[in-house]
Amino acid sequence: MITHRIQIEKKVLNENQRIAADLRRRFEESGTLVLNLISSPGSGKTSLLECTLACLPRSTRVAVLTGDIQTENDAQRLQRFGFLVKQITTGGTCHLDARMIERAIASWDLDDLDLLFIENVGNLVCPSSYDLGEAAKIVILSVTEGEDKPLKYPSIFFKSELMVLNKVDLLPYVPFSVAVAVENAKRTHPGIEVILTSCTTDYGLNGWLHWLDSRVTTARNSQAVLV
Amino acid sequence: MITHRIQIEKKVLNENQRIAADLRRRFEESGTLVLNLISSPGSGKTSLLECTLACLPRSTRVAVLTGDIQTENDAQRLQRFGFLVKQITTGGTCHLDARMIERAIASWDLDDLDLLFIENVGNLVCPSSYDLGEAAKIVILSVTEGEDKPLKYPSIFFKSELMVLNKVDLLPYVPFSVAVAVENAKRTHPGIEVILTSCTTDYGLNGWLHWLDSRVTTARNSQAVLV
Repeated sequence: MITHRIQIEKKVLNENQRIAADLRRRFEESGTLVLNLISSPGSGKTSLLECTLACLPRSTRVAVLTGDIQTENDAQRLQRFGFLVKQITTGGTCHLDARMIERAIASWDLDDLDLLFIENVGNLVCPSSYDLGEAAKIVILSVTEGEDKPLKYPSIFFKSELMVLNKVDLLPYVPFSVAVAVENAKRTHPGIEVILTSCTTDYGLNGWLHWLDSRVTTARNSQAVLV
Repeated sequence: MITHRIQIEKKVLNENQRIAADLRRRFEESGTLVLNLISSPGSGKTSLLECTLACLPRSTRVAVLTGDIQTENDAQRLQRFGFLVKQITTGGTCHLDARMIERAIASWDLDDLDLLFIENVGNLVCPSSYDLGEAAKIVILSVTEGEDKPLKYPSIFFKSELMVLNKVDLLPYVPFSVAVAVENAKRTHPGIEVILTSCTTDYGLNGWLHWLDSRVTTARNSQAVLV
């Protein structure tokens, strides 16, 4: 039975990979930068998106897909900024998959989008196995979670281009060494970039917005080459 | 293919249930209280166990099984208290299952154990689907994670007898209402008990130890009835 299970899992992941590759081609052709945000529950994905949407110039055409097992709370929090926001409620599934993304954007014209954030289900394990056609995965780690997480959950840190180390305003109150956390992340993935942020004090948000801007520009330029 | 996948998932869960039922019978016959601790990564499961092992009288015969995807860090942290500790490294699997528990305790004499803590993989979603033969599931939520978590991850709050609301020493620094979190937990599971704790200030640890003591006594008395 274990062999059957592995075969089925492989089929599911292959099917996911096929849809993700198709999504990636579409995103690249439209010049839309797609970022897949992954973290534990409560690391501040939605808060980071709130700060981001509040700061982005209205000329940047942005959308958010936000995944949760239950509730539409996150979509409600994000809708007030006037950008396109859609909730994906998985009903129990512990991750988003490429088919869910394909369905959610079915009625959208990607040519009208510069930037699409996908806020995954809060889970540091399962979402790392599912390609959503994104240009990059971003892992968010809050300083309250402990500096050992990149070693204990290596897959998502290995696959992410950027680690956002969030809630740094709480550093005075928790036993957490930024140096050790960064060292652990780099040990798992030497090329990972790191940005420190706090959504309550706005610390580091300029660096984050600069990173985004640079990646949006790259996506646009790559599209020009494709066209 | 989806039908095949569901059938395989059902078989896996049925097989897990069969082993879990056997484990539960063995735990009840030996009068061993088994608690399955589930939370997000970094909510403080290991810290709570450190405080607990430091406080428990040496006459209480305790063991810990601690689950992680990678590293033996948690077992190393817990071994210094002199109780029986074993690490289960899942190598990628996002939860513990009953077969892993069965294997881990194969060489143990359960009659020598009053209390077995199972520290699950840090994941608020998948572990809730796998019965490990425990007497009770306990969900740990830290106040840095947000008061909406019982609504967004209802399954584990519904299945847990107790919510330990941890890191309450950080309440002055985070936007978190204990009343709203408890209301959300009770809305998901009206019968859930709640204990507030801080492992850095020892707040609430007496209440937690009292809860444990009362449950250990119940397990022993139930065994007497069985015998």
